[in-house]
Amino acid sequence: MNYKTDKKAAIFMADGCEEIEALTVVDILYRAGIPLTKVSISDSLSVTSSHEVTFLTDTTVSLLDFDEYDMLILPGGMPGTIHLDACQRLTEQVTAFAKAGKQIAAICAAPSVFARLGLLQGKKATCNPSKEGALKEGGAILTYEQVTVTDNIITSQAMGTAIPFALAIVAHYLGQETADALRENIIYKPQ
Amino acid sequence: MNYKTDKKAAIFMADGCEEIEALTVVDILYRAGIPLTKVSISDSLSVTSSHEVTFLTDTTVSLLDFDEYDMLILPGGMPGTIHLDACQRLTEQVTAFAKAGKQIAAICAAPSVFARLGLLQGKKATCNPSKEGALKEGGAILTYEQVTVTDNIITSQAMGTAIPFALAIVAHYLGQETADALRENIIYKPQ
Repeated sequence: MNYKTDKKAAIFMADGCEEIEALTVVDILYRAGIPLTKVSISDSLSVTSSHEVTFLTDTTVSLLDFDEYDMLILPGGMPGTIHLDACQRLTEQVTAFAKAGKQIAAICAAPSVFARLGLLQGKKATCNPSKEGALKEGGAILTYEQVTVTDNIITSQAMGTAIPFALAIVAHYLGQETADALRENIIYKPQ
Repeated sequence: MNYKTDKKAAIFMADGCEEIEALTVVDILYRAGIPLTKVSISDSLSVTSSHEVTFLTDTTVSLLDFDEYDMLILPGGMPGTIHLDACQRLTEQVTAFAKAGKQIAAICAAPSVFARLGLLQGKKATCNPSKEGALKEGGAILTYEQVTVTDNIITSQAMGTAIPFALAIVAHYLGQETADALRENIIYKPQ
């Protein structure tokens, strides 16, 4: 791989995660040349998604050296999001990243994990309609946008917004022009 | 699973296939309740995509009873599409399906397989810009649309059109209203 940045991102996969939300980030960051590690939150490298797709990750959360990373990314899906929320090693690091001004990103149901951790208090964010109550309880200012970037936090709505979510991550690392060129290359555009 | 149709579709995965083009179909058809079998074209159930995602299929092409199926679906990606094109058992069945008026569908580079087999002669179709020459050589009438449905053939352009491609398959089985409701549910809409 010819990487375009020396910063590294990690995406966390649990059984019951939404495979397209997770793997669109993998696909787009690979195309962009941004280093990304796929991390299983169990002790197995194998994860089975909410639609019964079994795929392999690169490592497990217990083995991950979080200090090597610049961004932590959470896909949604059920019950995947519940498993992410219950993974203490992950949620401690998500909180530490947020407080240190490092990047965190979540899509669909997963922004509710940030809300539960108190990381969205007074901040603009978006999420799946099913989790709007949880975000409000956590003090977030809902934007109802497909993707919202606020300070060091990226949030997004659903499986159908996975591409703009991944492109917002590309824009963070490599700029909006690079993200726009990639968007054109994959022929993602309004219908 | 509570299936909404007794028709069955099969999607064919090769090493080097585009994972989002392949798995978006899996995701959306699962949500819609349309039976879909993931088929490896090698003798291994394990496939590694063009962006190094390894995932499992349900069966292999040598074991598949094509008579049970109503639709054959080809994802793009390189070199995945080359491998699909070289799989004689698959291309013979694609030709037989097309001639019998059964459904065939392909996205990105994969419509070039249909063109090479002579199945797009005089028919409207779309594909990745990199394969427009191959489609013209095969006598296709290029539409440059995100998705084109002509008789029993569905074609689509790229990774960024995987959702409308999958929704066109849903519309074929369950009608446009069901596809539109699913599109809203996953929050896929013009930006």
